[in-house]
Amino acid sequence: MPSLDDATRGRVLFGGDYNPEQWPEETWPEDVRLMKEARVTSVTLGVFSWARLEPRPGARDFGWLDRLMDLMAANGIGVVLATPTASPPPWMGSRHPETLPRDEDGRIVWWGSRQQFCPSSPVYRAYAAALTQDLAARYGGHPALRMWHINNEYCTHCWCDETARHFRDWLRARHGTLDALNESWGTAFWSQRYDSWDEIIPPRRAQYLRNPGHTLDFRRFTSDALLECYTAERDIVVWHTPDTPVTSNFMPLWSGQDGWGWAEREDVVSVDIYPDPRDPYGGQYNAMLGDLTRSQARGPWVLMEQAAGPVNWRGVNHPKPAGLNRLQSWQSVARGADAVCYFQWRQSRQGAEKFHSGMLSHAGEQGRTFREIKRIGAELARLGPEMAGTHTADEIALLHDWDSWWADQQDGRLSSRLDYPEVLRAWHRALWESNLRTGFARPDHDLSAYRLVVVPHLYLLTDTAIDNLVRYVRDGGTLVSGFLTGVADEDDRVREGGMDARLRELFGIGTVHEWWPLDADETVECDGFRATLWSEELEVSTGETVASYTSGELAGLPAVLRNGRAWYVSTLPEPEALRALLARVAESAGVRPVLEGLPDGVEAVRRGGLLFLFNHGAKDVTVATGGPYRELLGDRAVDGSVELGRHGVAILREPNHSATESPNH
Amino acid sequence: MPSLDDATRGRVLFGGDYNPEQWPEETWPEDVRLMKEARVTSVTLGVFSWARLEPRPGARDFGWLDRLMDLMAANGIGVVLATPTASPPPWMGSRHPETLPRDEDGRIVWWGSRQQFCPSSPVYRAYAAALTQDLAARYGGHPALRMWHINNEYCTHCWCDETARHFRDWLRARHGTLDALNESWGTAFWSQRYDSWDEIIPPRRAQYLRNPGHTLDFRRFTSDALLECYTAERDIVVWHTPDTPVTSNFMPLWSGQDGWGWAEREDVVSVDIYPDPRDPYGGQYNAMLGDLTRSQARGPWVLMEQAAGPVNWRGVNHPKPAGLNRLQSWQSVARGADAVCYFQWRQSRQGAEKFHSGMLSHAGEQGRTFREIKRIGAELARLGPEMAGTHTADEIALLHDWDSWWADQQDGRLSSRLDYPEVLRAWHRALWESNLRTGFARPDHDLSAYRLVVVPHLYLLTDTAIDNLVRYVRDGGTLVSGFLTGVADEDDRVREGGMDARLRELFGIGTVHEWWPLDADETVECDGFRATLWSEELEVSTGETVASYTSGELAGLPAVLRNGRAWYVSTLPEPEALRALLARVAESAGVRPVLEGLPDGVEAVRRGGLLFLFNHGAKDVTVATGGPYRELLGDRAVDGSVELGRHGVAILREPNHSATESPNH
Amino acid sequence: MPSLDDATRGRVLFGGDYNPEQWPEETWPEDVRLMKEARVTSVTLGVFSWARLEPRPGARDFGWLDRLMDLMAANGIGVVLATPTASPPPWMGSRHPETLPRDEDGRIVWWGSRQQFCPSSPVYRAYAAALTQDLAARYGGHPALRMWHINNEYCTHCWCDETARHFRDWLRARHGTLDALNESWGTAFWSQRYDSWDEIIPPRRAQYLRNPGHTLDFRRFTSDALLECYTAERDIVVWHTPDTPVTSNFMPLWSGQDGWGWAEREDVVSVDIYPDPRDPYGGQYNAMLGDLTRSQARGPWVLMEQAAGPVNWRGVNHPKPAGLNRLQSWQSVARGADAVCYFQWRQSRQGAEKFHSGMLSHAGEQGRTFREIKRIGAELARLGPEMAGTHTADEIALLHDWDSWWADQQDGRLSSRLDYPEVLRAWHRALWESNLRTGFARPDHDLSAYRLVVVPHLYLLTDTAIDNLVRYVRDGGTLVSGFLTGVADEDDRVREGGMDARLRELFGIGTVHEWWPLDADETVECDGFRATLWSEELEVSTGETVASYTSGELAGLPAVLRNGRAWYVSTLPEPEALRALLARVAESAGVRPVLEGLPDGVEAVRRGGLLFLFNHGAKDVTVATGGPYRELLGDRAVDGSVELGRHGVAILREPNHSATESPNH
Repeated sequence: MPSLDDATRGRVLFGGDYNPEQWPEETWPEDVRLMKEARVTSVTLGVFSWARLEPRPGARDFGWLDRLMDLMAANGIGVVLATPTASPPPWMGSRHPETLPRDEDGRIVWWGSRQQFCPSSPVYRAYAAALTQDLAARYGGHPALRMWHINNEYCTHCWCDETARHFRDWLRARHGTLDALNESWGTAFWSQRYDSWDEIIPPRRAQYLRNPGHTLDFRRFTSDALLECYTAERDIVVWHTPDTPVTSNFMPLWSGQDGWGWAEREDVVSVDIYPDPRDPYGGQYNAMLGDLTRSQARGPWVLMEQAAGPVNWRGVNHPKPAGLNRLQSWQSVARGADAVCYFQWRQSRQGAEKFHSGMLSHAGEQGRTFREIKRIGAELARLGPEMAGTHTADEIALLHDWDSWWADQQDGRLSSRLDYPEVLRAWHRALWESNLRTGFARPDHDLSAYRLVVVPHLYLLTDTAIDNLVRYVRDGGTLVSGFLTGVADEDDRVREGGMDARLRELFGIGTVHEWWPLDADETVECDGFRATLWSEELEVSTGETVASYTSGELAGLPAVLRNGRAWYVSTLPEPEALRALLARVAESAGVRPVLEGLPDGVEAVRRGGLLFLFNHGAKDVTVATGGPYRELLGDRAVDGSVELGRHGVAILREPNHSATESPNH
Repeated sequence: MPSLDDATRGRVLFGGDYNPEQWPEETWPEDVRLMKEARVTSVTLGVFSWARLEPRPGARDFGWLDRLMDLMAANGIGVVLATPTASPPPWMGSRHPETLPRDEDGRIVWWGSRQQFCPSSPVYRAYAAALTQDLAARYGGHPALRMWHINNEYCTHCWCDETARHFRDWLRARHGTLDALNESWGTAFWSQRYDSWDEIIPPRRAQYLRNPGHTLDFRRFTSDALLECYTAERDIVVWHTPDTPVTSNFMPLWSGQDGWGWAEREDVVSVDIYPDPRDPYGGQYNAMLGDLTRSQARGPWVLMEQAAGPVNWRGVNHPKPAGLNRLQSWQSVARGADAVCYFQWRQSRQGAEKFHSGMLSHAGEQGRTFREIKRIGAELARLGPEMAGTHTADEIALLHDWDSWWADQQDGRLSSRLDYPEVLRAWHRALWESNLRTGFARPDHDLSAYRLVVVPHLYLLTDTAIDNLVRYVRDGGTLVSGFLTGVADEDDRVREGGMDARLRELFGIGTVHEWWPLDADETVECDGFRATLWSEELEVSTGETVASYTSGELAGLPAVLRNGRAWYVSTLPEPEALRALLARVAESAGVRPVLEGLPDGVEAVRRGGLLFLFNHGAKDVTVATGGPYRELLGDRAVDGSVELGRHGVAILREPNHSATESPNH
Repeated sequence: MPSLDDATRGRVLFGGDYNPEQWPEETWPEDVRLMKEARVTSVTLGVFSWARLEPRPGARDFGWLDRLMDLMAANGIGVVLATPTASPPPWMGSRHPETLPRDEDGRIVWWGSRQQFCPSSPVYRAYAAALTQDLAARYGGHPALRMWHINNEYCTHCWCDETARHFRDWLRARHGTLDALNESWGTAFWSQRYDSWDEIIPPRRAQYLRNPGHTLDFRRFTSDALLECYTAERDIVVWHTPDTPVTSNFMPLWSGQDGWGWAEREDVVSVDIYPDPRDPYGGQYNAMLGDLTRSQARGPWVLMEQAAGPVNWRGVNHPKPAGLNRLQSWQSVARGADAVCYFQWRQSRQGAEKFHSGMLSHAGEQGRTFREIKRIGAELARLGPEMAGTHTADEIALLHDWDSWWADQQDGRLSSRLDYPEVLRAWHRALWESNLRTGFARPDHDLSAYRLVVVPHLYLLTDTAIDNLVRYVRDGGTLVSGFLTGVADEDDRVREGGMDARLRELFGIGTVHEWWPLDADETVECDGFRATLWSEELEVSTGETVASYTSGELAGLPAVLRNGRAWYVSTLPEPEALRALLARVAESAGVRPVLEGLPDGVEAVRRGGLLFLFNHGAKDVTVATGGPYRELLGDRAVDGSVELGRHGVAILREPNHSATESPNH
């Protein structure tokens, strides 16, 4: 099986999406000159080239791409070659209207933007396969080719009749019989029983709340329908180039794809990360996505897209202050990236993304943006080879599951304020601020290698997952769980007692009387801290009360419980309190921070034998590091401490590499 | 004519919706055991059982319902049997797409939730009639049957072509000729004149403001179309069981049904009330709905649904603190309810309402919720027989009219901040806080029995209604009216002078120069109080100025007028001021509070010979009651005062019953 | 060519829309009596009379209009006669559904309001032409006829298939070849290349951001499609009455019509202005619209609609305090209006606009509104002849362009907070507060007559326009430009360097590194002032830094630049700072305020030999005017100063008329 090493060849890749078809061919040599100046080693070609490659049904125009591939090869720049199937040409919708998606309200999604295809459409799939076939056949052996990039940010949903037929097939495969489906969805409620497979449709606009089993299965189906599109194209390119790795770039922590299942079907896991430059915790966000992607990849991963400056899809699009791009690029490398890439090389002058930054912005080579790009490129070229391919195992696992997320976001839920990714982020931030590096895992993964397992909030847990967690604690692991966990089974059926009995026993909870979600401006006081968003009316059995509620309707009842190595947090402590609580739990599990006593906003991460330091704060700081070390960016000796300005980065080479480090894990 | 007594048989009913088809049949005996423990006397069966009873077109499956009816009968639990026509099975929409509603934008409302039927659809009506016929024939003589429950919370609207045809028929019947319709709607404006009946459609998505006559008639039509659905089913069950009462449960103060007209066609008036547990005036809301329903019923009524804990359809769904369910249940009885029922008996584990509480919650029989249910059931079983069937006439009538509400909520109105039910509620609250119990009436009802008539805001008043009000005052009654009243006639045509001349004369108003609605954060000062939402530029004729505006553009002009026994309030005084004003008007009309000098948040109500006291406040209070009394809940003597904790209730038996009390009115 | 003089005949017209078909014919004589009392000289007839004139396809009913025209003629009231084509009768949509517009989502826009026609529909156009033809033939020679009023507030947009065909024709004419279109729109991006004209559709609902070239051309097309509707009807009436002027009333500063192009095709430019009575800068808004319309008309213009009191389409509709109507009416005359008209004469009692005020309100002739109308009418009758036809040239031009506005408002833009008309308004207000009267011009107009040219913000500038601006400064003019100007070319292609090189040279800017839009609550400090909304990271070449940023990421970089007579303002200074800055620039250009040292809120304007003073503030003020003057409203001598109460107006006759004044320019 090919792997990321086959693409990186010992380097940390640097580059980005390259869309030269937008420019006159005379521009290409200048592009190459500037790429070399910026030490670009990788470009992604063809992402949105369908209309150029197939200007009308069945036609082919490869000449321009031949010339580009050759140009890249001649200049030693590797190519990540995309199948252009994310954006069908106008002729597709015009000639085959049934390929156009329909939304929940039955409205047609027309061409004129991108991604206007129904993933269940056989016509779309046939055209996509034919072009992929020809691309793979033509460029499979090209010396510039390093990796395949299937489609782009798969994200279409569709509610059309074609989708209905496909959904029924998927349901037949999942449930076997209509009785089983009726049972799984609980259609006895509200007279929703299906008497025939033909009666089943996607969950469309309805009078009132929709059936949660139906909508949950539709989320699962949509992820799988997109995955079928991916695997069909992947199988074609693998047939032609069994030794070239394949990826498809994820949107960061996006709800529409089951990232665990998808990652298993990729040789290389890649992701697009766009931290908001104005987010005071943008560094944590970047870290979290890196941690998740590293865990999906089980090793080094690819940052396929980030922005050198502003994006164009926020309400207000802020540029990156000087240094932020470099800081976040190195941060991704520290958390395991073996490629630092951008959308896109040269900023477009036309089209919907002309205000999305490029490595080469409208200001051109004299612009501040390009100057910073050149600095990053030079540093990566010099230091990348020491990092590429190295992997450091995690001691902590944060559990995350798309299925639970989907079940969480339904009509008729307890609180519309409960935002799954926000809860996940709050818990990750608490660990990040303590420099406790964490990986991610799915609740049914083998957890035995972790010292600490953290469950921010998993509303839905399968029996397998529950048994896995119970076994993990029984076998000596430490587990800490947030509120509203283990409530529903695989069918989104509420478990008896409102929380699975095995989990209640694990945490020492007797009865879950009521869930008490909190309002937007509401807080609740607990022993020594304040909390938000959630609270629960619990009756303890064997658990020990670590902290009680001291205000509100639940005053006097337990807020945080501990039952041996199992902890339960029935509310969302404010950030500092959650940080302190998780630090205490980690300590009880024998997990230590990377460095202790760091100034606020300073992040320390180890990768292989290197210690990375990042200053996310606004002020200059002095970091006590001990020593002696070699600081690699400045190529200087460090002993005892290092100074970091705003957006400052230091990379210290440790005298001895830690035991957890290994090339290619 | 059958009445509620035929169902209650001298008790206050206790129970709720029971949907056992969601559970394995083994659960039923446990349900019965727990129902008996909770002293449940009534269950509502079959509300959403269409797909179970008629699994495919024309099929019938009654066996399970036979067994349930027998089980209830055997255990002495009465059954309110529903026609299941609120939620057609999926096969209906799948085989007869024309039964699916379309919204104003032409979007189909699909199955997958509930209520996906066009009320004008002959196909839907035919299926509904056939099943109702079979249900009535089969269970008409069953010993468990106590009452028929037609459909559930009628609330569908539809804008489809079938609706258009039906709407035209309704318009022909109302207006006779097209000329009359054009005149009534004022179609000379904006070139909207209809040349043929076929040109008339429901008021669909348009370029700009729609014709108010058109939209008002469509609201009237929609209420009537639903009423036709109701009466068709009612007539069938009445044919089979002329001695069994019939009801259909209202949503509380819902805009879509003309509640006065509907109530006249029901043997029993029932309603679903869901006060927000977080609403500091939830007690007032509960009281208001009780007052309205008692007035619609002209005597005892049925609380068909309330929640034992949280609901699942608010943004954030809060449980009920201990005691609140009991408080509000007794409050409904005090205001005339002869049945205290819940949606639903056993909380669902699946489906869209699995987080809507049940009498038996996810926590089961050990849960706090069920413990409170058992207490309420025991108390009602002991004390209910003394209350059931008693009725105490009201001295005050609050006028409310759906027609005026509909006319109020149109495109192009004076202020979108004017929320009809909120104004109604503000005025009811002012009376409630003074312990001045009020009933409700329609402006054309016989008002002669009331000492005081209160009109919070009736934008539209027919000539009949205006004459009725004028006659009422002329004959010695006291009338107080809020702003923007008597502006439009039955066709929503603005009356000359902007307010009907008879009303101007009644209130002593000369000219209405302009209406001055207030902005969101705007208040206006008046002599001795502050007001919000509204103000009016009036010129007085014979009226006496009770209070003037003292700030803003209207400073110096009259805010509150009095012309003998007729008062006019041209703004919305803040709560305490409106309370004081209405107390003063009530005193002038010779109406006294139930009790005076009550602590804040304490409500006192009389029903029959009993005095009910409720503590809605957060603190313990001592209520001076005089005495001696017998306090029935605690079965103890009370003399002079009674203590009430938070959510506390006391029921005092008076030495002599008042003259206004009578069984069955 | 006929002109406004042909309609005014030396007076300032006074009157409004008159829709007598809403009233019984007996009302008409009363209307005439009250019109004469109010000195009404002009009524607009027939605006929404299509269904009355053509009750069914091809039928004609002119009798009522004959009688009205004669009645007006007999009473000396002139008629502005409208083609009633803004609101097709219900029969049109019912018989010809293809005339109904569809919105971006494909939803049909039904009849039941007004303007339900697709401007591209040949069927609609044919009916409109036939009726216009008959109207013009019948009333062309009528003695009451003064002016033609084509349609009303053209504002429909449509995305239907008929529109698609028409759009393709328009694109063929604009671009010639499909290659040129693909180049213009940049369809190489996101695989949007069109292979056939048939593939092009209006920009409908899409998955993500739409192509800006496509949507920009569609805005241009829609304006042109409406213009075709206008010119078709105009040509018909001109054929019949070559000496009667033609207009079509604009909505104020509306985005849908290219006002410059339209005005060129009208004999008389007319506009509808509805300042919000609660807007503290309503006076400035009224002034701005007057300035714009005067510039479009290149002389006197018609205020076709304003409201005597409240409108009915705001969320909360406030009346006008006493005096405000008179103040704003005179303000329009001062800024060049030769007609002061209202929607509408008599307030409707039915229909969607029954709460839109009329000159004769619901309160009738005793109402405050009508009393104020009579005062205005009398004053205009007395003083109007001295003003009618006079025109005073502007020294300042504010540049405004619909094309740039359209390009500004696209998917994927830098900041959704950037609201083009708000920026325009902020700059106009700065001039208005300094009593620096300004006209408006398009960036490619001949600017040589102006001393100062002001560019608040023109994102898109054609090469012609840029050359025009550069030449203007080179030839001695003073130019001041706001941020984000000259970024895009005619195809919305970003110019190299992010700002056109000629403009960078003009302003002395070297490199535009990044645009830094500001957040909602964000401000940035500069030398001596605070600014909002926007900032830019600029590198200066030859420019002089007038003010630097002193806070935020750009601290130390230039905020305001000056390069000789060219100024560049890279942010939006707060109002007082922008006022001071523009006053400084104006002074450098040799432009003086009308009067100096005026109290806050007092506006001074010259028209012909008259000096108008307006008190927009809440308090009484004394204005130092010098003198001696004759004050015309009070017909009194003024020497040195004049007192103005709230909403006060004074009109001073100057001893000698200024040189810039001329009748009929």
